[in-house]
Amino acid sequence: MDISASDLTLTEKASLTSGADFWNTKAIERLGQPSIMLADGPHGLRKQAGETDHLGMSGSLPATCFPPSVGLGSTWDPDLVEQVGAAIGAEAAAENVAVVLGPGINIKRSPLCGRNFEYFSEDPLISGVLGAAWVRGLQSTGTGASLKHLAANNQEFDRIRVSSDVDMRPLREIYLRGFERVVRDEQPWTVMCSYNRINGVYASEDPWLLTRVLRQEWGFEGLVVSDWGAVNDRLAGLPAGLDLEMPFSGGRTDAQLVAAVQAGTLAEEALETAAGRVLELIGKARQRPPAAVPIDVDAHHALARQAAGRSIVLLRNDGILPLARHARIAVIGAFAAHPRYQGAGSSLINPTRLDKALEEIRALADGEVAYAPGFTLDGEGSGDDAALREQAAGVAREAEVVVVFLGLPATQESEGFDREHLDLPAAQLDLLDAVLEANPATVVVLSNGGVVALPFRDRAPAIVEASLLGQAGGGATADVLFGVVNPSAKLTETIPLRLEDNPSYGNFPGEFGHVRYGEGIMVGYRWYDGRGLDVAYPFGHGLSYTTFAYGNPSAELDADGDIVVSVPVTNTGGVRGREVVQVYASLPGSRVERAPRELKGFGSVTLEPGQCADVQILVRRPDLAYWDIRVDRWVVEGGEYAFDVAASSRDIRATATVAVPGDEVVLPLTMESSVGDLLAHPVAGPIVQGVFAQVTGTMDATAAAMMPNGEALRKMMASFPLSRLAGFPGLPVTFEQIEQLVAYANANA
Amino acid sequence: MDISASDLTLTEKASLTSGADFWNTKAIERLGQPSIMLADGPHGLRKQAGETDHLGMSGSLPATCFPPSVGLGSTWDPDLVEQVGAAIGAEAAAENVAVVLGPGINIKRSPLCGRNFEYFSEDPLISGVLGAAWVRGLQSTGTGASLKHLAANNQEFDRIRVSSDVDMRPLREIYLRGFERVVRDEQPWTVMCSYNRINGVYASEDPWLLTRVLRQEWGFEGLVVSDWGAVNDRLAGLPAGLDLEMPFSGGRTDAQLVAAVQAGTLAEEALETAAGRVLELIGKARQRPPAAVPIDVDAHHALARQAAGRSIVLLRNDGILPLARHARIAVIGAFAAHPRYQGAGSSLINPTRLDKALEEIRALADGEVAYAPGFTLDGEGSGDDAALREQAAGVAREAEVVVVFLGLPATQESEGFDREHLDLPAAQLDLLDAVLEANPATVVVLSNGGVVALPFRDRAPAIVEASLLGQAGGGATADVLFGVVNPSAKLTETIPLRLEDNPSYGNFPGEFGHVRYGEGIMVGYRWYDGRGLDVAYPFGHGLSYTTFAYGNPSAELDADGDIVVSVPVTNTGGVRGREVVQVYASLPGSRVERAPRELKGFGSVTLEPGQCADVQILVRRPDLAYWDIRVDRWVVEGGEYAFDVAASSRDIRATATVAVPGDEVVLPLTMESSVGDLLAHPVAGPIVQGVFAQVTGTMDATAAAMMPNGEALRKMMASFPLSRLAGFPGLPVTFEQIEQLVAYANANA
Repeated sequence: MDISASDLTLTEKASLTSGADFWNTKAIERLGQPSIMLADGPHGLRKQAGETDHLGMSGSLPATCFPPSVGLGSTWDPDLVEQVGAAIGAEAAAENVAVVLGPGINIKRSPLCGRNFEYFSEDPLISGVLGAAWVRGLQSTGTGASLKHLAANNQEFDRIRVSSDVDMRPLREIYLRGFERVVRDEQPWTVMCSYNRINGVYASEDPWLLTRVLRQEWGFEGLVVSDWGAVNDRLAGLPAGLDLEMPFSGGRTDAQLVAAVQAGTLAEEALETAAGRVLELIGKARQRPPAAVPIDVDAHHALARQAAGRSIVLLRNDGILPLARHARIAVIGAFAAHPRYQGAGSSLINPTRLDKALEEIRALADGEVAYAPGFTLDGEGSGDDAALREQAAGVAREAEVVVVFLGLPATQESEGFDREHLDLPAAQLDLLDAVLEANPATVVVLSNGGVVALPFRDRAPAIVEASLLGQAGGGATADVLFGVVNPSAKLTETIPLRLEDNPSYGNFPGEFGHVRYGEGIMVGYRWYDGRGLDVAYPFGHGLSYTTFAYGNPSAELDADGDIVVSVPVTNTGGVRGREVVQVYASLPGSRVERAPRELKGFGSVTLEPGQCADVQILVRRPDLAYWDIRVDRWVVEGGEYAFDVAASSRDIRATATVAVPGDEVVLPLTMESSVGDLLAHPVAGPIVQGVFAQVTGTMDATAAAMMPNGEALRKMMASFPLSRLAGFPGLPVTFEQIEQLVAYANANA
Repeated sequence: MDISASDLTLTEKASLTSGADFWNTKAIERLGQPSIMLADGPHGLRKQAGETDHLGMSGSLPATCFPPSVGLGSTWDPDLVEQVGAAIGAEAAAENVAVVLGPGINIKRSPLCGRNFEYFSEDPLISGVLGAAWVRGLQSTGTGASLKHLAANNQEFDRIRVSSDVDMRPLREIYLRGFERVVRDEQPWTVMCSYNRINGVYASEDPWLLTRVLRQEWGFEGLVVSDWGAVNDRLAGLPAGLDLEMPFSGGRTDAQLVAAVQAGTLAEEALETAAGRVLELIGKARQRPPAAVPIDVDAHHALARQAAGRSIVLLRNDGILPLARHARIAVIGAFAAHPRYQGAGSSLINPTRLDKALEEIRALADGEVAYAPGFTLDGEGSGDDAALREQAAGVAREAEVVVVFLGLPATQESEGFDREHLDLPAAQLDLLDAVLEANPATVVVLSNGGVVALPFRDRAPAIVEASLLGQAGGGATADVLFGVVNPSAKLTETIPLRLEDNPSYGNFPGEFGHVRYGEGIMVGYRWYDGRGLDVAYPFGHGLSYTTFAYGNPSAELDADGDIVVSVPVTNTGGVRGREVVQVYASLPGSRVERAPRELKGFGSVTLEPGQCADVQILVRRPDLAYWDIRVDRWVVEGGEYAFDVAASSRDIRATATVAVPGDEVVLPLTMESSVGDLLAHPVAGPIVQGVFAQVTGTMDATAAAMMPNGEALRKMMASFPLSRLAGFPGLPVTFEQIEQLVAYANANA
């Protein structure tokens, strides 16, 4: 049973490293190795129903549809995400699925990315923390995860070919950082490489990405699987670190591998390594105990409702919420009866059941609840709009309070293409105007996977961002509207005022096979804060039916060099509530460009009215590091860090500072080093000061005018390279003398 | 006399391709070849006075100080710029200077660049047009120009080492485009390579830049000289296309060349080519007739005053200007008596004389003109500020009208370092507040090389942007204030509201040797317009003492395929005036990302009150091209272009459209081509439609839900590469069939 890849024939090795069909690996019956199944996720199990559809797009077996990541991310609740992961793992076990293809933790670079609903955030820390929690939960059931999509896969336009042209700092600090955390913390069984290219190289054949970074730096021990159809050139991919091609490619690429080994252009060891990883994955899958009992569909639905309730962000509330049960309520908007609860594409779940907000509101309300659809669900306006609007306004007029369900049409949000604007359909905005005019006591509930513009945000007394909430979203929405659940979710993506304010605007989605990540590290709130731009609602924002006061925070280094931030939080309102506390770090005067603040930790606390508790938040030292391109590694810069303790990225309640010791960066002097480098050098610096004095001493009045003062001179000369300094005649040093100085300084530093 | 480089010994060849000292080439006395002199420009001649200062920074001979490019560019007047070039050429001839180091036409990417005063604009078209005019004028005197600094040299911080990391479209369309125009139109005798690296390669050793682009594409026939000290590795530079190293590097690098030829690592032909170009340059210099007469200093000063008057931009005027000669005038601000008229660094001219605004105002005024310095000139506030301010307020209170001269301290603007903010010194802003309070009838005159923030712009009834105006700026300023000259200059650089709005913010000046041009082509007004940002004053803005009405424009293709835009302009005000008419092009629905509008032509007309004339502006067809990275060349996209006829980039008076035929771009199909490419292909397209029908026919209801509608499907599949399409089992095509289709389509296209 304990076979190794060296037991396989060459043909078997090649064969094992690509799928048997759309979802299964190949069995090696000769050696008793079964095939194992991989299936889509990640907010539920999408196990394809029939055997006959090889395209992989036909209907799937019923499974619990949990909130997609756009919702789940807003919980800021790793424990809850872990429970959801475990529930999905249990469902996978019951269906004999070995690996669930998730979590997706790509960064929401542009609000237009068609697949944003599958991702957690514009921030890598929360993406990584929640992605790790999901993997932890899933893998606790003996089911494997597939962390995806590695890497810089942030748009759908031209997704299979486009090169994400991104500099090393943003690649490391924004786009890879979450992946690094999940790999280091949780060792997902598999990592899925993305379709796109990164700086010109396909992810599926990038040895730097798949081997040097993923395995050698991060210590990844599992298997790399291609996104479905991501293999461009398997002969390049396999030695780069791509272990398993999915789906089955008809035998063509297997034959290429065999031929290449026979021709001596591919080392058989590389193929054996990949086949060995497939065997290891099969071995792990076989260790899972058989699922003992059928899935408790009711319990999973209840968990989905709990998760959905915790996913709802209360953007605005002038006091109209929560609704009184006895109020005369009108519900308007077709989404109330026909929920949008997930996005289209490979993550489309066939839910075990489906709550509708209208029914759930009626279940909780004491009185009658009127309803009018207000608009049609086929997207943009049709001939009925005026009539529907008029009917809705009439219904609104009769009510004490109105709840309007607006959202993006399902046709606008899907894997495979991007949105083109941030706007809700005009018919819906017109409807809202009519309803607000008929009855200003109107709550807006939004169903949307990607961020939408909110031109009505100052006119609607309450706005509930219900994003996409999965199969139990209708009930959860009712829970929040009536205060059965006190909302505690917070945005993990900035809602901008205009698309034009977004950092990627003009550089998205690229053209002719390239997209430049020109904004660098300034993604999401980092950009809006850095440029001082107004936003509709900032990253981290979310209201509650109660209020919280923050006391004086403290920040201290612990024995491991991590930072413990502690802050007392008091529930100062009238109801029980949960507060998500965020910690943002900054380092004034840093040697590198930084955002004004970056999320480095978060935690939450649930408090009764009047209750106070200390919230402790651990900031890991490595999370303070920037990627230093001089030495090509993470570096924690020493200095006095400010830790903003905040209710959102723009609601800083207090700041604690702590001196963090820096990592040593030793840069040997070279002839390319600058005068500034030289002056800062402990050995060479004092020597050079003498040279400088000599130089400035030779200048006449005009030269002095040109060198307006000592500070200007220092600024001007600071970046002058040593090689060029010596090249100037009249300066009292020769090239050789500087070479000697450099050698001396390096030897004695 | 007619010697060629093959007459030289190896040592002579090496020797000739570096300077003899700081400013001269080497003589080859054996062959009767004299040394020739190069000297700094470009807004005047900076011929170093003494022989002894080898540092090149000591005092220079008196020369006419014309307006630096920040002023001259605002004239939008190629004829005037040509005259200035010719005057400088005459002064060079009189001093036996063979080559004047200018024009500098780098793009003002950031308002902080310390050397912006030496450059014309944030836009490549006007930079190229004015640079060409300057070269035309200079070279008409038999003096050679040195077009600089090639290329992407847009900051002073770390300027000698930093790599300008810039994608091909912005490099070609923004940063090289002006250079291309000047080279193609005027064949400057020399081109100066810049210090910095471009995408990692030193400009001084970049064969792509110095040979492929400059010589092979643009047809440059002259000599490439290094910026002073720009040679990093001469052994790499010489074969790349660097002909002449300046200044003298002590013989070290000459010896390297000789040794390399002897060792066979450097082809002697390369060295001979470079030496031959130096000989050609010497030959051209010797053809200049001896300067007949001494320079007419008065005439040149008069030209400097005319140029300065045409350089002054009237930003704002509620009617307070022009001043009445009999008004009781107070002049406030130390710059009125101590003019700032040029920037520091290698372009620092020793002027033949120097006008002071205070004296010139007094000369034109009928009555007495009071004066108070208001602040000290040593930059930020000193202990005297309060007293000076109080005195100034008192003087202002007694006047009918006040003119306040504010500006940037000389210490803040220099070659060699960048500014750190856009603000005028706080003491000056405080002074202005005090003066405005004492007397609201206050005109602000600004002296600044780089753009400054104008927080007072809604409070001051008039703002005169006098930038840096050269030695006659004081007189020219008085001319404009009293209406002797009716201002007609317009901004060639946007004045933003805040530094944070600038496109390069966060990507300037870079760190650790790299600066990412992340904004791509969206430089200057292209960015502000593209993002819909408010600005203080837009690109192209400038007022007159009269007004102009624009009639209906027309746009037509001429026989060469160029576009002639014609518009009737009428002087609708009360005084004679000159109007600069701008033409901006756009192509709605373009296949590439474009700015909302781009300057493609301009012209001017001088009209008496009531007079009307047609202004004809030629838009060259090549200026409509974008750089197509698929085929690595300029491509004019066919379509209906809109030509906005405008008084500024945000004052569009009318639009004419014309259909422009496109350049053919033939892209052969490959297996990397997308389904979209295939569908658009004249041969393959119809065949593929049939395949598609088959595919969609196999989908079931869930697949249909995933593929929400036909349009979404098309969007999703459009970027699917052919190789991957075939890889999917279930699709009724094999890899080989698609290969056959591609071959068939290419053969029959």
